[in-house]
Amino acid sequence: MTIKTEHLRDFKALLPENQWTEDQNIIAPHLSEWRDKFHGSTPLMLMPMSTADVQKILILANKAEVNLSIQGGNTGLVGGSTPGLENREEILVSLKKMSRVEAPCSDTMTITVEAGAILSTVHTEAEPYHFPLSLASEGSCTIGGTMATNAGGIHVIRYGTMRHLVAGIEAVLPDGTIFSNLGGLKKDNTGFDLQNLLIGSEGTLGIITKAKLKLFPKPNTLVTGWLSVHDIDKCLPLMNALQTLSNQGLHAFEVMGKTGLDFVEKHMAGKAPVSQLAPWSILFDIEIEGPDSLEKALAECLDSGAITDAVIAQNKAQQKALWALRENLSEAQKYEGGSIKHDISLPLEQLASFMKQAPHRIQSIVKGARPTPFGHFGDGNLHYNIMQPETMAKETFLNHWPEMNAAIHDLVCSMKGSISAEHGIGTLKREELALRHPEKVAAFKKIKAALDPKDILNKGRVI
Amino acid sequence: MTIKTEHLRDFKALLPENQWTEDQNIIAPHLSEWRDKFHGSTPLMLMPMSTADVQKILILANKAEVNLSIQGGNTGLVGGSTPGLENREEILVSLKKMSRVEAPCSDTMTITVEAGAILSTVHTEAEPYHFPLSLASEGSCTIGGTMATNAGGIHVIRYGTMRHLVAGIEAVLPDGTIFSNLGGLKKDNTGFDLQNLLIGSEGTLGIITKAKLKLFPKPNTLVTGWLSVHDIDKCLPLMNALQTLSNQGLHAFEVMGKTGLDFVEKHMAGKAPVSQLAPWSILFDIEIEGPDSLEKALAECLDSGAITDAVIAQNKAQQKALWALRENLSEAQKYEGGSIKHDISLPLEQLASFMKQAPHRIQSIVKGARPTPFGHFGDGNLHYNIMQPETMAKETFLNHWPEMNAAIHDLVCSMKGSISAEHGIGTLKREELALRHPEKVAAFKKIKAALDPKDILNKGRVI
Repeated sequence: MTIKTEHLRDFKALLPENQWTEDQNIIAPHLSEWRDKFHGSTPLMLMPMSTADVQKILILANKAEVNLSIQGGNTGLVGGSTPGLENREEILVSLKKMSRVEAPCSDTMTITVEAGAILSTVHTEAEPYHFPLSLASEGSCTIGGTMATNAGGIHVIRYGTMRHLVAGIEAVLPDGTIFSNLGGLKKDNTGFDLQNLLIGSEGTLGIITKAKLKLFPKPNTLVTGWLSVHDIDKCLPLMNALQTLSNQGLHAFEVMGKTGLDFVEKHMAGKAPVSQLAPWSILFDIEIEGPDSLEKALAECLDSGAITDAVIAQNKAQQKALWALRENLSEAQKYEGGSIKHDISLPLEQLASFMKQAPHRIQSIVKGARPTPFGHFGDGNLHYNIMQPETMAKETFLNHWPEMNAAIHDLVCSMKGSISAEHGIGTLKREELALRHPEKVAAFKKIKAALDPKDILNKGRVI
Repeated sequence: MTIKTEHLRDFKALLPENQWTEDQNIIAPHLSEWRDKFHGSTPLMLMPMSTADVQKILILANKAEVNLSIQGGNTGLVGGSTPGLENREEILVSLKKMSRVEAPCSDTMTITVEAGAILSTVHTEAEPYHFPLSLASEGSCTIGGTMATNAGGIHVIRYGTMRHLVAGIEAVLPDGTIFSNLGGLKKDNTGFDLQNLLIGSEGTLGIITKAKLKLFPKPNTLVTGWLSVHDIDKCLPLMNALQTLSNQGLHAFEVMGKTGLDFVEKHMAGKAPVSQLAPWSILFDIEIEGPDSLEKALAECLDSGAITDAVIAQNKAQQKALWALRENLSEAQKYEGGSIKHDISLPLEQLASFMKQAPHRIQSIVKGARPTPFGHFGDGNLHYNIMQPETMAKETFLNHWPEMNAAIHDLVCSMKGSISAEHGIGTLKREELALRHPEKVAAFKKIKAALDPKDILNKGRVI
């Protein structure tokens, strides 16, 4: 369906000339994303400067029945922010010009920012406080995008996902109603929780324009450690022991399989801090009073056989070197050919069982395929990647993607896990969500139809 | 509208005989509440034993178009759980027979409980762990009720409200759909946040039947202290200083005005721990390494004049005595005649300004009325009670209730505060919510109509 010329004219008339463009050269970077999986199109990009601008856009979109695609930093991985997919015609609304960041408030330990602010800018502006959301894309992702997708990252074990870091929001609902909740109240029982409904709805139920974010004191010096573990069953008790020892002081607790670390050593000049890699390696950051107690506890774990090696970084350079091993896991896999990826989460008590069962399911589909799991074990979140067998053609292997996904997700769902832990649904996982959770999607559709009866906002995403 | 006899028969036929009653003697305690403000009626009380029972009830209620009133421990204060108000006829659904509590899981630090479990039972069953929700009504309120109302209480400053203590829920939506989310996942971005939508919706959007609750290590020994403060502006900086000193170790931070404490001394044989009460007294519980640092910090506050007195409880008896002063505040007020009550919250940075402005507004309505504020300052939550002038007739004073409410709530709303911090909306505040936040209520109505088109569930509450 083509957007009528008169409607394009009306949208352009809403905003000053520097807040819209039809120049396809300027628009181009907004039409694809870094994995190069989704390619979209749009005749017009609008760049509101205020909540009032967003309101005007939504009111007109409803009147003209024109679809809108909402975009922050365009760093999503599931085709949520690309306009014009699936033969829709959509006007693109980019929040990037709404990027004001207020000074942090020390009385309330909060910072108020507009949706288009870049995450790393917020890190800087929050000084001397700490805004803990930390993502690989933090140099380009926006606060609005991290709210729309309830972003996760490395430090969820300590601070929770984005949802838990938001003290208040301002948003425009699909019909143009402004919902303003910027008081940052810690207690407010005046009806349904619209704020949490909007956070994580991937721009389908409203456009979040502003947020009051929670700040934290800068953590004390973190101790970084590496543990070798032979038995995956030991990981959860180890994590709980470290939490108890440090009064819930873990800031990260990552588990990595040997296969992936072998790739890092082979292709990325990485060097594990132990003479021989165990089947499982743990990397952790911990805030702890008196590191002696940590050393003592690890010595006991060595004695009991729970771990077979333990290394504590002695300085910043060593900390960085340990983290580089973890951070290079994704890159190193590229040298080994095709990879089928999963962004799953599991109840903590099911993680070990999953790790044991999944390889059998994989082998029954492609013999020789190599599971390369790693991830935020402390949050139950695994990036469960499966590398092609060494001798198979990449394309042949990748043709098994749907079958492999189905097998892994079957196992995940049988264990009450999630088929999208942190990346969201977007366009990519919409059909599978409907298949896996028809009861949830039925409720989502009712809520969407109630708040956005003309399906103006981010149509085709999530549901 | 009277429920047809054939419909009553159909509902009774759904459940075994020990799961329903028409005996008005048995039903009577469910028809009024402890403040004796609401008096209801019902022809039939159903007592489901399982999520499947609840599902059957909802499916039939939709088919027969019969209204249901949902009740937990019946300890609410806003007429949310009383059946048959405002000339509705409703079948009462009591969750009290669904009270199973599983053993706590030490791997995941969670406990799974049914909605009818009593809060204090959960405290006991959670041993050796700590379930931190603490309310005056904990001996009779149910976990289901605390979820439906997003209960708060004393320790919100440390652990958040009930919403933050829930790892997962099982619920039945109004049309009978079962929404099961008991995996307790820390990361799950598969669509809209139904869990938080149901929590705090006061039983209007679904019946929560089960929950997986978060447990915590028992806190280390808490230090209890009392501070005298002349200038209300000092309270927030004091709180922030204690948080920094203890690495966010405050478990409670209560502020009390002199008027209320005078009443406790006069009527309840209470004795403040200082020779002369200051205009403001602070009572705090703190988890802190090395109490010496606390004493040093308080000595500095005395030197700077931020506080004029400081007392640290030296043993459990002293701790208890300090807390008794706080806990007797409500009771003591009864001896002073009529009291107009408010359950409000404010942005932290507005609390002091509110405390200074409110008395002027009060005096302009009833000269001589005595503000008796106290509350969970650390959460921005004040129980802002106003006592009658000593010489006025109680009824005369209480006739000013609506006018006084309007004045206080005007000020609260102008400061982005909440007219219901922890008690919810129920029947009591429905009209005022619609008046204060028409934009929110319009959205609530759309969501309610989408999920419960026949308005079966807790009709007339919230919206």
